[in-house]
Amino acid sequence: MEIIYTKPESVNSLMEAAWEAFAVYQQTSLQIRAALMREIALQLEALGDAWIHAAMEETHLPEARLRGERARTIFQLNSYADACERGDWLEACIDTAIPDKAPPKPDLRKMRVGLGPVLVFGASNFPYAYSTAGGDTATALAAGCPVIVKAHPAHPKTSSMAAAAIANAVSIMQLPAAVFTHVHDDGLATTHALIQHPYTKAIGFTGSYQGGKAIFDMANQRKEPIPVFAEMGSINPVFLFPEKLATDAEAIANLYAGSITLGMGQFCTNPGLIIGIASPALNEFIQTLGKAIEQIAPAPMLHAGIAANYKKNRLTALGVTGVIIATAVASNADGLLPIPTIATTSAANFLAQPQLQEEVFGPYSLVVQCADMNEMLAVSKQIHGQLTATCMATETEAANSAELIQQIQQLCGRIIFNGVPTGVEVCLSMQHGGPFPASTDSRFGSVGADGIKRFSRPIAYQNWPDTLLPDALKRENPLNIWRTVNDQLTKAPA
Amino acid sequence: MEIIYTKPESVNSLMEAAWEAFAVYQQTSLQIRAALMREIALQLEALGDAWIHAAMEETHLPEARLRGERARTIFQLNSYADACERGDWLEACIDTAIPDKAPPKPDLRKMRVGLGPVLVFGASNFPYAYSTAGGDTATALAAGCPVIVKAHPAHPKTSSMAAAAIANAVSIMQLPAAVFTHVHDDGLATTHALIQHPYTKAIGFTGSYQGGKAIFDMANQRKEPIPVFAEMGSINPVFLFPEKLATDAEAIANLYAGSITLGMGQFCTNPGLIIGIASPALNEFIQTLGKAIEQIAPAPMLHAGIAANYKKNRLTALGVTGVIIATAVASNADGLLPIPTIATTSAANFLAQPQLQEEVFGPYSLVVQCADMNEMLAVSKQIHGQLTATCMATETEAANSAELIQQIQQLCGRIIFNGVPTGVEVCLSMQHGGPFPASTDSRFGSVGADGIKRFSRPIAYQNWPDTLLPDALKRENPLNIWRTVNDQLTKAPA
Repeated sequence: MEIIYTKPESVNSLMEAAWEAFAVYQQTSLQIRAALMREIALQLEALGDAWIHAAMEETHLPEARLRGERARTIFQLNSYADACERGDWLEACIDTAIPDKAPPKPDLRKMRVGLGPVLVFGASNFPYAYSTAGGDTATALAAGCPVIVKAHPAHPKTSSMAAAAIANAVSIMQLPAAVFTHVHDDGLATTHALIQHPYTKAIGFTGSYQGGKAIFDMANQRKEPIPVFAEMGSINPVFLFPEKLATDAEAIANLYAGSITLGMGQFCTNPGLIIGIASPALNEFIQTLGKAIEQIAPAPMLHAGIAANYKKNRLTALGVTGVIIATAVASNADGLLPIPTIATTSAANFLAQPQLQEEVFGPYSLVVQCADMNEMLAVSKQIHGQLTATCMATETEAANSAELIQQIQQLCGRIIFNGVPTGVEVCLSMQHGGPFPASTDSRFGSVGADGIKRFSRPIAYQNWPDTLLPDALKRENPLNIWRTVNDQLTKAPA
Repeated sequence: MEIIYTKPESVNSLMEAAWEAFAVYQQTSLQIRAALMREIALQLEALGDAWIHAAMEETHLPEARLRGERARTIFQLNSYADACERGDWLEACIDTAIPDKAPPKPDLRKMRVGLGPVLVFGASNFPYAYSTAGGDTATALAAGCPVIVKAHPAHPKTSSMAAAAIANAVSIMQLPAAVFTHVHDDGLATTHALIQHPYTKAIGFTGSYQGGKAIFDMANQRKEPIPVFAEMGSINPVFLFPEKLATDAEAIANLYAGSITLGMGQFCTNPGLIIGIASPALNEFIQTLGKAIEQIAPAPMLHAGIAANYKKNRLTALGVTGVIIATAVASNADGLLPIPTIATTSAANFLAQPQLQEEVFGPYSLVVQCADMNEMLAVSKQIHGQLTATCMATETEAANSAELIQQIQQLCGRIIFNGVPTGVEVCLSMQHGGPFPASTDSRFGSVGADGIKRFSRPIAYQNWPDTLLPDALKRENPLNIWRTVNDQLTKAPA
């Protein structure tokens, strides 16, 4: 497959086409959008093993993982289609007129509508589920927004195949082709032109802090700033409470060995920071963790750039004063194989050196040893925003540590009790997005159908004739959706 | 009343106090927050006529208007308290565990929590309802966030009195005093320190584009960018459809004369742009509008700065080539009295000169004369984001103008049929916030209880013990709130 790069001078015409497509697509019913999403799922499935093989070749991810991720991608499209049709995300809301109030209260009806064309940057570590046909694309389409995907350069073929499947679905649904646009860029000029184009109305991004922050800054410096939802990764701190650890050190260590090395640590929910109280139990935990990690064969990382970064960032982290290697799994560190590593340091050292919070993307985790619970609290206060945080604790000690638990909640988007942060369930109650720098807008999330709201805004219709209202707001409630009428949720006509 | 200015070097200690107050206040129940808001309403009422007199003196607004605005402010606090307690804004959402799924599906429960201390900048044109005890303060308190109000320098006494009332309420509720902080600044240094302080987690602003945009930029350039909801005004275009105008020109002109001069045009919903088709009916409209405006006695503007700006911006607008004065009401334009003005120009001229979209804050409106409906569509495409847009149309011609109506919807947060944009009903279905530059984040609004969501974010609890969950997410649903359980809205236990 030949990669055709889009030149910066072509950006204007493709964005004009996306804008024209928006005029048509935003008026489609929820049913049509859901049907499009389901058709995309079918078309992705129809790519068959060729799509799996393309991703294996480009990402070095194992086949079983990719088959699982493909299933998840298809599930996302279908379940977000269901949510799109259910219409709760519209947040339809009606206040009926009170003509004899002074002044008269008008009839007001509010719902969410799409923002306009959405630019999507996928991630290298999820070539299906967070890439071309991933969650950002699905939620933007549900919101009524055309999508422009900038293909990830690490898996251009996988991306192009997904793009062709989406284009097929758009065509089958007889929608304007520019409802979906796929762009390869051989530098940054085309990307910058896309971010800055006036018809680009929102951006979804999954990737590194550097990439996400640069896009966020550029989007805010536009003449018309636009919302950017950038999910930029995390070190996902795990707090080992002493009572729990004392009874369960070995089991927890084995659980975490699996989580740290899952996908060679290339998940945004990888537990890169483990905080415990210095004790024989913590020593046992560290030893068992090390042994367990030694049993797990290193697998190639996604691509040479990520492998090189891991090598560099690992050495930087290990070079910080007071950081000691607990386990480093010897492997052929040339090429794509990483050296899975557990390091450890004192809480005092962690508190003194803020750079120890920087993510080492890969199979690396730092165990911070606190003198006592007060020091654990101090560490929790220093940790910046995270996608997740985990408490390994007995119910009693969690109940007795209200301040610490509150502090941990405050730093994350998802708080886990006695589990691992890896494994992000796709459902409405998931929150994948946390305080900065985990994401650029903690008020939204990128997993689950609530992500639709990122790309939509409320509009209120005042005294608008029923026949001209969108179906979601018509008096008879023809869509049979939940609406808040005079402050009460109901499906009744209003 | 002596104004005590806060020095920049005091900002750190007041923000630390706000942060400590957050730890306590975010854990209060919805009932406590609602009780606080209702107590603030009572305390404001108890200020009695002294508060009215202070505002009259500082803003030159007439007594009747201020009494109405005070009632609205109290209504906001009470109705947002009701919404806070009702708990719909929490968007509580539960997916119950499926242990035998592979891998097992965890129990996930999501709700919104406060972001942290919120910095509020009030508006000069609403010294009660959008100022110290206004909508931003009320919604931030409902979300569980402490509030720091930077007093508007044009009504420091009115602001201080409101602040004292709020402080009383906080004290009566036995909450930490730093749940509410009131700051005067005699320059910008303290303001900048507040915007940049790491414990400031969100900003609400109502005022000019220049002020809002400067705050937005500074907030985004922080090491940790924070959300800013800035409502920056509008010119609120009104589209006069020809059939409607032909039958109703005189009545519409009289209606708009009232809207344009209401509060001397000092409303963010003032109709500053009227678009019609050149015709005898439009001429009649302009003449009648002019006569009606001549009948309305000019009243003083809010303060000398606003009066001077009106004078300057009006002359700039009238100085643009092709802009003709239709009516200018002679008055003593020295001092605070404005010259209410209707100007007119051709659509061709409007399209050629983008500066004609700049707001002239005050009793000024520009009538744009289009050759035909195609030119009206072209004008609608050029207009940037607005709080409101209005269609004066028969149902038939609205139904026959789908493209134009869609374009008008796209540019605004609220679309009005056969009415005036002034008069913003406080209710859940109101949307006050539109595409940039009307506001900095069109996904939210600043009137109505949905404004609470601006200052809150979702957090998901995974496999969390029931006893340690917030009440909103406990299995038995002790708050009896609506929750989405396994994708369905219900009040049932889950």
